[in-house]
Amino acid sequence: MTNETDIRVKYADTDQMGVVYYAKYLEYFEVGRTELMRKMGLAYSRLEAEGIYLPVVECSCSYRKPARYDDLLTVVTVAREVRSASVRMEYEIHRKEDSILIARGFTRHATVDPRGKPVCMPEKMRDRLMECVSCLSSNAGSGQERRRFK
Amino acid sequence: MTNETDIRVKYADTDQMGVVYYAKYLEYFEVGRTELMRKMGLAYSRLEAEGIYLPVVECSCSYRKPARYDDLLTVVTVAREVRSASVRMEYEIHRKEDSILIARGFTRHATVDPRGKPVCMPEKMRDRLMECVSCLSSNAGSGQERRRFK
Amino acid sequence: MTNETDIRVKYADTDQMGVVYYAKYLEYFEVGRTELMRKMGLAYSRLEAEGIYLPVVECSCSYRKPARYDDLLTVVTVAREVRSASVRMEYEIHRKEDSILIARGFTRHATVDPRGKPVCMPEKMRDRLMECVSCLSSNAGSGQERRRFK
Amino acid sequence: MTNETDIRVKYADTDQMGVVYYAKYLEYFEVGRTELMRKMGLAYSRLEAEGIYLPVVECSCSYRKPARYDDLLTVVTVAREVRSASVRMEYEIHRKEDSILIARGFTRHATVDPRGKPVCMPEKMRDRLMECVSCLSSNAGSGQERRRFK
Repeated sequence: MTNETDIRVKYADTDQMGVVYYAKYLEYFEVGRTELMRKMGLAYSRLEAEGIYLPVVECSCSYRKPARYDDLLTVVTVAREVRSASVRMEYEIHRKEDSILIARGFTRHATVDPRGKPVCMPEKMRDRLMECVSCLSSNAGSGQERRRFK
Repeated sequence: MTNETDIRVKYADTDQMGVVYYAKYLEYFEVGRTELMRKMGLAYSRLEAEGIYLPVVECSCSYRKPARYDDLLTVVTVAREVRSASVRMEYEIHRKEDSILIARGFTRHATVDPRGKPVCMPEKMRDRLMECVSCLSSNAGSGQERRRFK
Repeated sequence: MTNETDIRVKYADTDQMGVVYYAKYLEYFEVGRTELMRKMGLAYSRLEAEGIYLPVVECSCSYRKPARYDDLLTVVTVAREVRSASVRMEYEIHRKEDSILIARGFTRHATVDPRGKPVCMPEKMRDRLMECVSCLSSNAGSGQERRRFK
Repeated sequence: MTNETDIRVKYADTDQMGVVYYAKYLEYFEVGRTELMRKMGLAYSRLEAEGIYLPVVECSCSYRKPARYDDLLTVVTVAREVRSASVRMEYEIHRKEDSILIARGFTRHATVDPRGKPVCMPEKMRDRLMECVSCLSSNAGSGQERRRFK
């Protein structure tokens, strides 16, 4: 399963270089994974209500082209590498207008209980995540990269 | 009691106008009141540990001159209008280099319990706040306003 | 003219009180006014391209009920008090689900040139803003305030 | 050359998990590299004034222990891998009180001109960066990692 969510760049997201500040992309990733989880039937707000938290234990982002104020971006999100107590999410951010790749990255999440102790994820959740595992398929060629789904 | 805390403007705080984004000043106010409370012996982290929260119920900010990347700012904070279940904090932000007034504002806080229900503040806390009430004394004249403490 | 824009609360927007951090509402206001301006035919990105900037010179916000993670909020925005070199925007934020009033506030903007010097706004822009002036009409009564448009 | 800068965790930096939100660490990294550059005599604000920008082209962060509200953190920053048109910065964030490792990461920066075009960095800047290249030396052992400088 792949989720695509559109995000409009706010003035608040820009910095004096006239582009989106690099940490903001991690917030865009958050929006992407929230909507992917919701689409999977695993709304994160409900998971927390059930005592399952998914803190980020690792993240990475590669910035290709700058996003700018008022750009409409598409965050493409997939789940990967589902383990008993962790999951990896992968992201691509494109400018909607012309599908140019803006940024690409991943986050790795542990499953922990409300006190932060690592726990195995509930079987149902793990099964559902495994059913939904997918991959991003941009060609990573040089020049003007455009998204090409398999 | 008056507290002065210095803050260095981060790149993250700027927007594409090349100045500090307007919502960031509220974070600078937060730093100012945290340090004022600490100086009063009422460290906010300890208050929360004791079950007293101080959510903002109202805020206001007037922007005089833009702050810019790497500016060193001074946040001057005082407590005012201590009531049984609320307190008002007032702020002035100056550029340290030349004392030019950058912004001025206030926040009003309610005292609530961990579930968000309004509660009277503990007597000791209220007494201490009342002992420390002070006021800002910039002259609000035209032109290049400079801080002048009473 | 009134604009209504929906915003989904991000995890990034919350703080350890489990509610939206107070400065984030100013970003929600920004989203509201950007979409109002676009609806008026005065897209802010185009204004900047034409050399007209609208920095905030004053803002105020009153917080009624906390917004929480994953809440869907509606920002209602109107323009008020159009002057030759300034405009005031007013906002109400409601929880979409039940129309409960979450926050209410305003921003006042000056029109400045790219170097930050105050300038009169172009006549066309002023005329258009004046045509679109409106007001918010929530009843400000006690208790569970609900939006009631005129 | 190694730079150590202290940062106090703000309430604004926390999320409803009661810990620092993952994107905020990138802002802490920014503070670390700004102060390292200043210490090297390459203040970033001056570089920009001279037409040299250092946008982030890649970043990565590994989260070990959560930082919490009001924690005093130490960001340790070093420069690495100085190339003709890029530089890599590495970071460790420790809780000051007990030197526990909180997070570790890097950013890679390109040198670009004011229009975003890649350019070689000025020779003087490159020489100075190369003189200052250093490395972080935490032992990456299991358990309670503590910083151990070479």
